[in-house]
Amino acid sequence: MNLNNEEFMTKDITHQGYPKIVTVVGAHHDGRTNFMTAAWSTYLSHQPLLFGVSIAPERFTHDLIKNSEEFNCNFLPYSETEKIHKIGRVSGHDGDKIKKLNLEIEKGHSIKTPYLQSAYAVIECKLHKSVKAGDHTFFIGEISDAFGHEEAFTDQGIVNLKKVDPTLYLGSNTYVTTRQDQKVIQDK
Amino acid sequence: MNLNNEEFMTKDITHQGYPKIVTVVGAHHDGRTNFMTAAWSTYLSHQPLLFGVSIAPERFTHDLIKNSEEFNCNFLPYSETEKIHKIGRVSGHDGDKIKKLNLEIEKGHSIKTPYLQSAYAVIECKLHKSVKAGDHTFFIGEISDAFGHEEAFTDQGIVNLKKVDPTLYLGSNTYVTTRQDQKVIQDK
Repeated sequence: MNLNNEEFMTKDITHQGYPKIVTVVGAHHDGRTNFMTAAWSTYLSHQPLLFGVSIAPERFTHDLIKNSEEFNCNFLPYSETEKIHKIGRVSGHDGDKIKKLNLEIEKGHSIKTPYLQSAYAVIECKLHKSVKAGDHTFFIGEISDAFGHEEAFTDQGIVNLKKVDPTLYLGSNTYVTTRQDQKVIQDK
Repeated sequence: MNLNNEEFMTKDITHQGYPKIVTVVGAHHDGRTNFMTAAWSTYLSHQPLLFGVSIAPERFTHDLIKNSEEFNCNFLPYSETEKIHKIGRVSGHDGDKIKKLNLEIEKGHSIKTPYLQSAYAVIECKLHKSVKAGDHTFFIGEISDAFGHEEAFTDQGIVNLKKVDPTLYLGSNTYVTTRQDQKVIQDK
């Protein structure tokens, strides 16, 4: 694609920075567990290992994290897209989402929040800092454990795209995944 | 893939949350422009529209942003992977990266920082807040303009994967892109 400056135009688009990997954020407080879908997350720091996720205050999960000071991020394969989307649409304010959506959960390793059995990878976090970011709260967690299905990762510790199709969000209820081929750039 | 709990194991992996879209962050201050590659970025808020990127203090771009209070994020197609990787490896501390890598730049729309001509989409930001996040600074910008190649977006304003292959980072110098097929989930 030849991108000449003349072809550039301002558009009313807010999805330039997509696709973004989708994570299902889990939280647990005072006997109540909830999961919600989020595309606004990122690693932040190596030392300590920090990971942040942006959540609107009206989401049921928001106060669970605020009060328990912990959360997890579950990465589900592309085959689970329907479920991932539903987890994002049903609200924990309207009752137990785990029962409603028949979510299968497992006991957390380093935190009280359970993780989703269908995840190929899980990051567990203890709250490090909360930052007000416009109409959202950016919860920054210190990674207390991270684990995944052995087959889902290569010996180098990166996702094995021959075994797992990660789920990415493109905007407008549209989900995509990766090609299996990849480019490895050798530093000279 | 059947993910039984028994198959889960803790691994020394820090790339569970990948692949992540790659952005080339541009900054300009006091006559000096620089670009660096970053995978740690995310949208944060709708109102105002905020976008954050995590940058280590030793990066040349860090102080350009700190001092000028603006930056941009350039999204380059997968065909530009070699260039993207090089932009991440050469340091602005060692001289003018734009000349060294023959980067073609265009005048910014809403900020002084120029953008990369080979980008299919650009987000321009004015610094909203800086947050210390471990060994990095998380620069939160308010989006002052966002634009892109008309062909690169659908009428709905999402990336048109039939025209653009976005560049994603998987870890360990490995880059991937998306499949063209996608799932659109209809809310019932």
